[in-house]
Amino acid sequence: MSPEEFRQQGHQLIDRIADYRANVASLPVMAQVEPGYLKHALPQAAPQQGEPFEQILADVDQLVMPGLSHWQHPDFFGYFPSNGTLSSVLGDFLSTGLGVLGLSWQSSPALSELEETTVDWLRQMIGLSGAWSGVIQDTASSSTLVALICARERASDYALVKGGLQAQARPLMIYTSAQAHSSVDKAALLAGFGKHNIRYIEVDEAFAMRPEALAAAIEQDLAAGLQPCAVVATTGTTATTALDPLEPIGRIARAHGLWLHVDSAMAGSAMILPECRWMWTGIEQADSIVVNAHKWLGVAFDCSLYFVRDPQHLIRVMSTNPSYLQSAVDGEVKNLRDWGIPLGRRFRALKLWFMLRSEGVEGLQQRLRRDLGNARWLEQQVGAAPGWEVLAPVQLQTLCIRHQPGGLEGEALDRHTRAWADRLNASGAAYVTPATLNGQWMVRVSVGALPTEREHVARLWEGLQQVVKG
Amino acid sequence: MSPEEFRQQGHQLIDRIADYRANVASLPVMAQVEPGYLKHALPQAAPQQGEPFEQILADVDQLVMPGLSHWQHPDFFGYFPSNGTLSSVLGDFLSTGLGVLGLSWQSSPALSELEETTVDWLRQMIGLSGAWSGVIQDTASSSTLVALICARERASDYALVKGGLQAQARPLMIYTSAQAHSSVDKAALLAGFGKHNIRYIEVDEAFAMRPEALAAAIEQDLAAGLQPCAVVATTGTTATTALDPLEPIGRIARAHGLWLHVDSAMAGSAMILPECRWMWTGIEQADSIVVNAHKWLGVAFDCSLYFVRDPQHLIRVMSTNPSYLQSAVDGEVKNLRDWGIPLGRRFRALKLWFMLRSEGVEGLQQRLRRDLGNARWLEQQVGAAPGWEVLAPVQLQTLCIRHQPGGLEGEALDRHTRAWADRLNASGAAYVTPATLNGQWMVRVSVGALPTEREHVARLWEGLQQVVKG
Repeated sequence: MSPEEFRQQGHQLIDRIADYRANVASLPVMAQVEPGYLKHALPQAAPQQGEPFEQILADVDQLVMPGLSHWQHPDFFGYFPSNGTLSSVLGDFLSTGLGVLGLSWQSSPALSELEETTVDWLRQMIGLSGAWSGVIQDTASSSTLVALICARERASDYALVKGGLQAQARPLMIYTSAQAHSSVDKAALLAGFGKHNIRYIEVDEAFAMRPEALAAAIEQDLAAGLQPCAVVATTGTTATTALDPLEPIGRIARAHGLWLHVDSAMAGSAMILPECRWMWTGIEQADSIVVNAHKWLGVAFDCSLYFVRDPQHLIRVMSTNPSYLQSAVDGEVKNLRDWGIPLGRRFRALKLWFMLRSEGVEGLQQRLRRDLGNARWLEQQVGAAPGWEVLAPVQLQTLCIRHQPGGLEGEALDRHTRAWADRLNASGAAYVTPATLNGQWMVRVSVGALPTEREHVARLWEGLQQVVKG
Repeated sequence: MSPEEFRQQGHQLIDRIADYRANVASLPVMAQVEPGYLKHALPQAAPQQGEPFEQILADVDQLVMPGLSHWQHPDFFGYFPSNGTLSSVLGDFLSTGLGVLGLSWQSSPALSELEETTVDWLRQMIGLSGAWSGVIQDTASSSTLVALICARERASDYALVKGGLQAQARPLMIYTSAQAHSSVDKAALLAGFGKHNIRYIEVDEAFAMRPEALAAAIEQDLAAGLQPCAVVATTGTTATTALDPLEPIGRIARAHGLWLHVDSAMAGSAMILPECRWMWTGIEQADSIVVNAHKWLGVAFDCSLYFVRDPQHLIRVMSTNPSYLQSAVDGEVKNLRDWGIPLGRRFRALKLWFMLRSEGVEGLQQRLRRDLGNARWLEQQVGAAPGWEVLAPVQLQTLCIRHQPGGLEGEALDRHTRAWADRLNASGAAYVTPATLNGQWMVRVSVGALPTEREHVARLWEGLQQVVKG
């Protein structure tokens, strides 16, 4: 495709995306398709000759669009929001259009330096001290894997340059809460710790980790000759946005020399609001933090920020330095390949920069406050309605709710819950996420999609009251 | 930013990118900036109020553009090409504009199914049998890490659900050649094997792994009570595009029950040419393969294809299944989160689909043949010129060359080589990559940027002959 054809088709694509964002509210939120719908409709092999671009776009309309669940829809209340603000979308377009790569500073200096600067802007916005250095990763899953590998190497005195984890005398132990995200478990398993060496610390009635239970588990493991290695605490758990108390957890971690990784993938965005900062009091005691700027905050996916207090340790664990990547300025620059797993890196700072500058800190704060207000309003409605329960403190913008028609419990209640959630999702009117809490199904309503206003939350509440009737 | 403002600014951005691609040849290939140039020019904090988009674009022009090394430039001969064909760029734009995520099939069915289909198209194009299943990862670094973790878990009978790698009785051993990419080493270290448990197998005069040396290393380790685990072979090494002989290596791996991972990050693209298929004769004996569609083939970064013969094993190692990710159709669909490390996934199949359909298999074949022809032409010029050497077989599109003015050797020769390479890069006329081979510096010329025609290669050759004069 020549630049001139790109120009022509690109203009059409821009209009198409603008129209999509302007009209997405008219589409069913959740895709109404059956498994296999698309792969059976597509040719079995790539075409030998190129096809006209119009034909590809026609297939986008006919085949792809019906198979989307719309994350940028005002009635999307599923999972956690993953907002792609249109200013950040343009930043990402520029990144892809330029097609430059960050293997090293030299391979595109602006890519590295803009990342350093914009990540530092965000550090200040969320109230972290100047002791932190950050980098953009793809997802919290990768960031947490990097964190646990770094914890492993600190505890083992850099076993990676010797016999590795297989030379470990006393098993290294990981501590997290039973409410931690599945990526914490996955990271510990991929890093080689083993399921038997993960301790799931019990939570209190607000689903937050009990520090005294953490302390007891560590003491017990020490007595058993095991080697405590790292604690993963969460600010804003996935099921209920519970807040593990960082101050006592941090004290315990420090006392035993453990790595403290804080998963603030979701709630990190809220830290741009001074009134929310109490949620991570004690954060400065952590060794690493992940904050997903691609969630509520609104940078087009993927943009997961990973902050560390000791960048030299991160670099020592992650660095490679083959001759073909060396340059004369290596001593003076950050080579971001040594800050994570992938060697090649997109110019992701552009989308963060475009959004921060276009929206401004106050614009972002306003939107997040809107969402917090909408969630509190919904909490009041649900809390006041007979037959409805709010199951966990609404700390942020996510509600855990259940409808209890009276008399139903156990599996019968679960069937009722899952049935109405499925009916709601299948209707296309809204998208919510069923999940379990204390072994019983409930429904998560996560407010905070970019175009979601009070009217949409009010309509959701009407819809919920209808849909539970069957 | 509203959809209407996006429409207006988006049109301007499309024109800007079209102009960039049309005029990139007029820019110096390598950035002509000093470390710190950008971060000292930017404000120290994010703006409180939003700024006009025009101001952001003005800063792109003044501050960002001068700090780019241009990978889409016809005179770019550095590293390996990372082509972003404009059709794939449009596919990526659509992905970012839609802003949908693939956490599970249900979270956007088209995302999963189009990935399954397009990856299978590419499987056929590169001549792999139907026994392979593929998935898109970000980079070869991640793909190789996934491969070595899978190897580790097969050899340890899924230790990850038990005591992990720390419960390993006999150390698991990794085998690769001394010419393997730095990401192989990094993956082995991050997966916990430990540097002492990596064996670097010696290479022959063409820089390919010696199978008999591999067999001997395995026998020696077995005799020493160690447990051979995986071999990583490379089709197209980074320094010289050497081809490890997969057939004998595969036989040895099979005989000992070792995992065979093949790094075809670079040369995998060439497998769309039947005349190149001999290069990976024996590939069907592998357990996993990585092919970077974002390199020479031309899909906008990132698009690394990871193929496995046993997807059930991959899923067993990678899967997580918390309640909030479960859906009614889980038994009938692929949930791609279980095929790699990250949970969240972009709609990357769009850029692959757009490129394959827009260019067609024959269009891609023609372009790759053009580049192979240009590399052979340059090889003839360099080989015939007095004082010049081609240091390794030119199997693909990368040449390793050295200028030997007579009498120079050792460090003096290295100084000469690095000096002329730096002069060339600093001039902005072309971009090449210095690297070491057998302990001595040489220069890699990697032909194959999208707009590179014979005239550019001819101009490079003139430039090389000039620049060595000092």
